[in-house]
Amino acid sequence: MTLAPGADSSPGRTPRSPPLFDRVAIIGVGLIGGSVGLACRARGLANEIRGADPDTEHRKAAMALGCADEVVADAGDAVEGADLVVLATPVGAIGRALEQILPHLASAAVVTDVGSVKAPVAAAMDRLVPGGRGVPGHPIAGRERSGPAAASADLFVGARCVLTPTPATGSAAVRLVRDLWKGLGAEVVEMSPERHDQVFAAVSHLPHIVAYALMGAILDLADDGDKVQQFAAGGLRDFTRVAMSHPVMWRDICLANRSQILEMIERFQTALDQLVALIRAEDGDGLCRQFSRARTARESVGRSEEGGPSHATS
Amino acid sequence: MTLAPGADSSPGRTPRSPPLFDRVAIIGVGLIGGSVGLACRARGLANEIRGADPDTEHRKAAMALGCADEVVADAGDAVEGADLVVLATPVGAIGRALEQILPHLASAAVVTDVGSVKAPVAAAMDRLVPGGRGVPGHPIAGRERSGPAAASADLFVGARCVLTPTPATGSAAVRLVRDLWKGLGAEVVEMSPERHDQVFAAVSHLPHIVAYALMGAILDLADDGDKVQQFAAGGLRDFTRVAMSHPVMWRDICLANRSQILEMIERFQTALDQLVALIRAEDGDGLCRQFSRARTARESVGRSEEGGPSHATS
Repeated sequence: MTLAPGADSSPGRTPRSPPLFDRVAIIGVGLIGGSVGLACRARGLANEIRGADPDTEHRKAAMALGCADEVVADAGDAVEGADLVVLATPVGAIGRALEQILPHLASAAVVTDVGSVKAPVAAAMDRLVPGGRGVPGHPIAGRERSGPAAASADLFVGARCVLTPTPATGSAAVRLVRDLWKGLGAEVVEMSPERHDQVFAAVSHLPHIVAYALMGAILDLADDGDKVQQFAAGGLRDFTRVAMSHPVMWRDICLANRSQILEMIERFQTALDQLVALIRAEDGDGLCRQFSRARTARESVGRSEEGGPSHATS
Repeated sequence: MTLAPGADSSPGRTPRSPPLFDRVAIIGVGLIGGSVGLACRARGLANEIRGADPDTEHRKAAMALGCADEVVADAGDAVEGADLVVLATPVGAIGRALEQILPHLASAAVVTDVGSVKAPVAAAMDRLVPGGRGVPGHPIAGRERSGPAAASADLFVGARCVLTPTPATGSAAVRLVRDLWKGLGAEVVEMSPERHDQVFAAVSHLPHIVAYALMGAILDLADDGDKVQQFAAGGLRDFTRVAMSHPVMWRDICLANRSQILEMIERFQTALDQLVALIRAEDGDGLCRQFSRARTARESVGRSEEGGPSHATS
């Protein structure tokens, strides 16, 4: 597919310069990969988009929804001739995907990914992708539902995307991947892979694991014919929305960011133990102090997120 | 204020029978009390609504917003001549409010409340309100913000309201309070005070306490100038919306439902410890099983709540 520059005359668009990429390959056309495809097409960022997915249903859905011009089963086939490769598999499959595509990569191809854990991906890219052209990335966007059917061309608009280059990553490659995400409507920030994994252990991985534990505890309580869940109100619903996320994705995150996650769980357990001690001691003033402190912090989260998309994310 | 029957001709309303109540007194005109007042007026359930609140600002706001015909400081003054009294104070203040109003109660007055913990309220009503005319209640509705400014005439539409009568509660009084909540648009369910407190320890109190602990843990991690909260995405935001609730309200709930809450926290800690063990052992299959189980349960919560208001609640 070739778009003549400026040929797109959809409302609100200005005539644009030639696409950023000639051929983009997306490995894994689920929610994120499918959305990258849709968004690249909607914004004219690539002349051609090829997808790869081992799942037949994903391939069919991605084609039907127009996430790519062609979707094949084999990742190696998809990356032939691509100038940008986006790895959008679950975190646990990124290393394998990298090994699959390497023999087929064009010599100047830049490789990036969208995984929620960055240190192991950054290490694998430094080891495997030649010339510092592997740029680890993490768009902070997601939905409860997974799969290409949930994909959207606007998923990244207003979202943040964290890039975690290492000292070995080439600056031209980083610039190109920045331009991709800016082109998709995201705000790009950079930090080290290790800092990323610590921050996201706190703000994302811990909350998800706590949500899973909460659902587990409530399930254990439910008795037949009088399910406590039926009285679940906003508190539980808001709190456990995150427990809808994809189990395989979260298994991979837990394994890939194990030590940071275990450390954050320990911090959380300490904070919970403090509340338990206050409740046990009937220390009303102490409870009020703790609750007020959390409320203030929550207000700052709310402010920093104003205008962002209201999605469950990884 | 007297409404002629059928005088209200706003769209979608049918001409109605005389109001259910002559005079309703609302003790505490915050979010819930203020909304009861607004909803009673909007739906013509009472000829007159009187409010009481010790907080000057609440009184002013409630009057300005039309939550009541008159709002006074003294609870005893407000209940004179009322046929229904709604106690809408924080849980910890309900006993004191009951004692304040008793000398002023009309002989046939029915008393109900809106507290999030029911066993201590039920015991106090059984002890203090004569003739079984105390009906403990808990509308499952709320918002992040508190105070009369957040009140809404539609707050209870589609919400559930749990009534927890005891063997000593009179059936005529229960019927009247049912009619109140049905008249405000809620679906009324009944259960014992003890069962209520167990169910809400699970679906509401535990999630709130866990949210507070989560905020505490993340606050402890934040370093100057690089606050981790700025990367808070949907996961954390959804999860900690509940930590915006009113500290005094949650202090009271923790103290009033102490033993059930401590038991639920223990169940939660066990579930979390199981996840920690699986992560530590790098047991991917075990993690997948736990995550899938929680996801299935969450889907059932979602279904049971369809159409309900999307509010943070107590």
